[in-house]
Amino acid sequence: MKRPPDISITRLAIYLRFLEDYLRAKGPQATINSTELAGFLDINHHQIRKDLSYFGKFGKQGIGYPVEELKDKISRILGLGKERYLCLCGLGNLGSALLAYRGFKQKNLNIVAVFDNDPVKIGRTVAGVKVYGPKAIIPVVKRFNIDIAIVAVPQAAAQDIADRLIKAGIRAILNFAPLKLNVPKRVRLRDVDLSAELINLTYFISSLL
Amino acid sequence: MKRPPDISITRLAIYLRFLEDYLRAKGPQATINSTELAGFLDINHHQIRKDLSYFGKFGKQGIGYPVEELKDKISRILGLGKERYLCLCGLGNLGSALLAYRGFKQKNLNIVAVFDNDPVKIGRTVAGVKVYGPKAIIPVVKRFNIDIAIVAVPQAAAQDIADRLIKAGIRAILNFAPLKLNVPKRVRLRDVDLSAELINLTYFISSLL
Repeated sequence: MKRPPDISITRLAIYLRFLEDYLRAKGPQATINSTELAGFLDINHHQIRKDLSYFGKFGKQGIGYPVEELKDKISRILGLGKERYLCLCGLGNLGSALLAYRGFKQKNLNIVAVFDNDPVKIGRTVAGVKVYGPKAIIPVVKRFNIDIAIVAVPQAAAQDIADRLIKAGIRAILNFAPLKLNVPKRVRLRDVDLSAELINLTYFISSLL
Repeated sequence: MKRPPDISITRLAIYLRFLEDYLRAKGPQATINSTELAGFLDINHHQIRKDLSYFGKFGKQGIGYPVEELKDKISRILGLGKERYLCLCGLGNLGSALLAYRGFKQKNLNIVAVFDNDPVKIGRTVAGVKVYGPKAIIPVVKRFNIDIAIVAVPQAAAQDIADRLIKAGIRAILNFAPLKLNVPKRVRLRDVDLSAELINLTYFISSLL
């Protein structure tokens, strides 16, 4: 199987989100074809078929895809078929917002530990999750089989936290800190740049003028 | 000029971020060619050339692009050449994190008003920005020439806030609330789904197994 590009994976996540909503609205017998899906999502239907083609054949020509089956298949492709254990590093405003975010849990993504260096927060339980100091990263990551870390600490602390996470055996990091972390090849790093989202809007607005 | 797809705009924002860092590291005389840029960013160099081609010719064959010129040109393309005025709706954890986020200001994106319905917060000044009640949306948006709104309110309040923003003449909304807002065609809507970012990581982890 050819490895699909990152951008196809991102689109699969978008398809999944839409299909979940569609299934709730239309019921378990719903079907959809790639042209309909393209119309709803404003994505080219050739692109949709190409994205899905990386993972084998879906649906029948002319009939479309059974939505429930497609949703489940995409969900498994994306690695969401089983429970995942995550840790959150940094319980500031952004970390607190992420801990409260309900979308993760719906996708089997469970934050099971929080790390922060504030003595006032260490030892407390927030939103059902215990807060540990940074020194606990290695034992806690191992104990809970955590393989994904969300980094939402200040810039100055981010590389140190990343180093501890890597030593603990973490396999993927979602980084909100505004710097490029050094991680070994075996660790998957994804940076979230909130201003990139806004830039799409500024482009749109100025291209109208 | 052919309208570039959304995904090219998203990549231009990524190029811009990289070029800013590169310029700081290498100085104002730096040049870069698309193959080097491709190597740093792990994006196909044909793709990079294609993205840039929507906006005319850049650089000279064989010599590469002068980084400063490329950065400025992309910045203008993305509508970042002038100051923009934004409002933030919702000063919970996520809203507070967004208000403190420094990346916006660096790109001429200025949050000049906050709206929240908590009487304790209304009238206060947070991070230099005044907090207003939702009834002030229409006059404040007009007075400050705000054309982009960031919506970080709870799901139940989001459509009502969006309706007020639209009445006030807002042109673009960045929505963090987990629902699809109804907006007229003339208003650009972009939804941020934080779980989509994590899904890229779960895919990577499970595809290794």
